[in-house]
Amino acid sequence: MTSVRVPVVEKILSANDSLASLNRSRLDASGVFSINLMASPGAGKTSLILRTIEALAPVLRLGVVEGDTAPVTIDADKVTAVGMPAVQINTGGDCHLDAVMLSTALPQLPLEALDLLIVENVGNLICPAAFRLGTHANVLVASVPEGDDKPYKYPAMYRGIDVLILNKIDLLPYVHFNMDYFRKGVEMLNPGVKTFPLSCQTGEGLPAWIDWVKEKAAA
Amino acid sequence: MTSVRVPVVEKILSANDSLASLNRSRLDASGVFSINLMASPGAGKTSLILRTIEALAPVLRLGVVEGDTAPVTIDADKVTAVGMPAVQINTGGDCHLDAVMLSTALPQLPLEALDLLIVENVGNLICPAAFRLGTHANVLVASVPEGDDKPYKYPAMYRGIDVLILNKIDLLPYVHFNMDYFRKGVEMLNPGVKTFPLSCQTGEGLPAWIDWVKEKAAA
Repeated sequence: MTSVRVPVVEKILSANDSLASLNRSRLDASGVFSINLMASPGAGKTSLILRTIEALAPVLRLGVVEGDTAPVTIDADKVTAVGMPAVQINTGGDCHLDAVMLSTALPQLPLEALDLLIVENVGNLICPAAFRLGTHANVLVASVPEGDDKPYKYPAMYRGIDVLILNKIDLLPYVHFNMDYFRKGVEMLNPGVKTFPLSCQTGEGLPAWIDWVKEKAAA
Repeated sequence: MTSVRVPVVEKILSANDSLASLNRSRLDASGVFSINLMASPGAGKTSLILRTIEALAPVLRLGVVEGDTAPVTIDADKVTAVGMPAVQINTGGDCHLDAVMLSTALPQLPLEALDLLIVENVGNLICPAAFRLGTHANVLVASVPEGDDKPYKYPAMYRGIDVLILNKIDLLPYVHFNMDYFRKGVEMLNPGVKTFPLSCQTGEGLPAWIDWVKEKAAA
């Protein structure tokens, strides 16, 4: 069955890469720094976006693209509720965003008036890793209650990221999570990857992430 | 892009359904009750399997099929470590198991000597919902730290299940989780679905699940 699908997938990936380059050019031309935010369902992507908006709205102009597999607007509503421009992409059941989807979303945003664009990918640790969007940084939100073995189980995702966030560190006292084992797995796949342990609930560790985003978006 | 992929996917799904029926016949002929266990990464599928083995090994003969997207044997090792027959399927990056994969795994298990087979699907709330395996019950492990909005975001998954487990209820005091909102979403998609709130860490709520499995496997 895999052999039936490979040629189709290869053509899609190659078309995807061309469109990803066009997306990047468009973002660069508008001076927008863009983040592709990926995670397992419920790891805290939307919470991180809301925390980032809260911290940076006074100094940066932010926009958000929300990817969802179902036609619900829960996440997009949360973003627009705090006054940010948000576009929702409904993938129609697909388990990831791709460059085509992002290319249709970009014209709906006031790019010239933005400094930072956060693209919230579909909650999934597998498929989003295969599709470049054209964004500047691939950021993964891992979370403590998911467990310390995730780098070993989802190597393609951990290999392809520029930044790793470990969210929900406030739950460390209540679950089994071996930090050394987790870090060892990450280091093996992506040596020296920039990592921010934090909690969107308590705010612990957030300033370091915020500083990183601010620096990148101002550059 | 979606329109390019649809015909391929339709053929695959139809071939998949035929093979799922064959899998079911093979399981029925051997008198094996089988479960397709699905969840988001880190919701607790393997922990639930280990707890189920612990409780039922004295009275039932169990086997396990472990689906993983990467060639790691972390979960299969945990199962064989407690003395159970386990077969691992590496999907080669695919984000779900399908009936073909299960049909190649079944002959590697001593089906005639088993009462219960648990198939641990790949950690993902999207793709596994589309592929029937031929098993008798679709069981979803949701978990408290994932958040109360998951039924709304992954409706296809919640619609297609026979049993819902809500794991990690020991974390309820430490996270925001509105049980009424969660239940309302579930009820809307899958009215009256059998639900077991439990904690694999503390053991709370496990006996009701164990009783259900025991009853089904003995029938």
